[in-house]
Amino acid sequence: MAQATEIKVRGYHLDLYGHVNNARYLEFLEEARWALVDESGGLEWFTQERLALVISRIDIRYKRPATMGDVLKIETRMAHLGEKEGVIHQRILRVDNEKVVAEADVSFAVIHATTPGAMPLEGELGRRLQEMMNV
Amino acid sequence: MAQATEIKVRGYHLDLYGHVNNARYLEFLEEARWALVDESGGLEWFTQERLALVISRIDIRYKRPATMGDVLKIETRMAHLGEKEGVIHQRILRVDNEKVVAEADVSFAVIHATTPGAMPLEGELGRRLQEMMNV
Amino acid sequence: MAQATEIKVRGYHLDLYGHVNNARYLEFLEEARWALVDESGGLEWFTQERLALVISRIDIRYKRPATMGDVLKIETRMAHLGEKEGVIHQRILRVDNEKVVAEADVSFAVIHATTPGAMPLEGELGRRLQEMMNV
Amino acid sequence: MAQATEIKVRGYHLDLYGHVNNARYLEFLEEARWALVDESGGLEWFTQERLALVISRIDIRYKRPATMGDVLKIETRMAHLGEKEGVIHQRILRVDNEKVVAEADVSFAVIHATTPGAMPLEGELGRRLQEMMNV
Repeated sequence: MAQATEIKVRGYHLDLYGHVNNARYLEFLEEARWALVDESGGLEWFTQERLALVISRIDIRYKRPATMGDVLKIETRMAHLGEKEGVIHQRILRVDNEKVVAEADVSFAVIHATTPGAMPLEGELGRRLQEMMNV
Repeated sequence: MAQATEIKVRGYHLDLYGHVNNARYLEFLEEARWALVDESGGLEWFTQERLALVISRIDIRYKRPATMGDVLKIETRMAHLGEKEGVIHQRILRVDNEKVVAEADVSFAVIHATTPGAMPLEGELGRRLQEMMNV
Repeated sequence: MAQATEIKVRGYHLDLYGHVNNARYLEFLEEARWALVDESGGLEWFTQERLALVISRIDIRYKRPATMGDVLKIETRMAHLGEKEGVIHQRILRVDNEKVVAEADVSFAVIHATTPGAMPLEGELGRRLQEMMNV
Repeated sequence: MAQATEIKVRGYHLDLYGHVNNARYLEFLEEARWALVDESGGLEWFTQERLALVISRIDIRYKRPATMGDVLKIETRMAHLGEKEGVIHQRILRVDNEKVVAEADVSFAVIHATTPGAMPLEGELGRRLQEMMNV
């Protein structure tokens, strides 16, 4: 099951057509990912192990515009966990009618502060990533 | 041949790792698209015809981090012009070494203020889109 | 008494020094003002009466940096309601130690969609502004 | 004499009223300050000396809305250089009619990476700040 973050659309999120701006959706997705990592206790562990999650690709499909006053929820789940790359699937829905506003596949790797290259997503790291996002 | 917009990376573009933030790149891409439409005289025509370009999908791959002081250029060209949907290909490169920082495929449709649905990308509209982005 | 909005500081709010960026604080203040207008039922009334709140000045003092994981609360209250201009006082505090991160005086006027100039802040408009922000 | 940075207003700078958003102006001001420090060669020196400019207050007055297609110039000059605090005065004007869109007083101090407290704005530091912004 996916975790959910809620955001209410405000005036400063909108462009001149009265719709949430493209770039702003990426902040909504990022907010939801941080909330997930944070609530799972993963943020502390990542910091302590000097690991960082690096986004390598975002493929976002805009389905319906969101506008002033809409309450959006962002669902986030691990869709795939490969050797050195994972894919997080995120959906942004309107809370009132459950319609999908946007959905995205976010590819990532994990890097270490002093080790070059992507870390293998196995062992404690793999287990924590799975737990975090309910594979 | 593709048009190019230049942007110098400043402190306020960076996140705590000292890299340009994911969402900010979408603004750089949007800046380059506006510049193109504007310089081609297309903005005036679009406004007068009550047409608007609507983004339906952005697929962006982050290749290398960009950091403070980097001068980036954004190349923008029409990659595909279908019946009712087009795809713009954009590349962000460092000016000093021509290395690709990010590349994106941006899918769009054109809508009219009072006509429902996507407009066919043909006639004067199709011609202007082609001219604008050098198919 | 002032109303309070809470925001948790995330990675994408930070600049390269690990501190919340200057411009981002203005979004936090705006979020708190929208929340207030919204919760008081004022947003619907303002829209229906075709009134809009226009910011004429923001004087913000940055007291202490806020960083990753800090939970901030934004207090918002009406400090002054003049003939045609009002001043909202806003404070951003850390929830854990009640220390002030920033405080701001936000001057505003109210305009009508078809009437030129600033509206007098009296009658139902004045009463609603007062109620909204607990003069 | 003050230095000037030019910015063309694009769709993504606007809010739903079609005006440049309050928070966005702070980015325009920051862009102009970075450009100044950068062009004067000051950025390299600041980095090497491990000094950073910290903003303590921004007092911005919004005079007239700016909208799509407006070309804005931002003028930046040192207005006051005190013992440990300076004030930069910035004006945002429309290039076509020289009308003021916004003006701001930006107070700052300079801090060193390992020395607590604000640095005295004298000696080479004072001289560079003056040169940078044409006192």
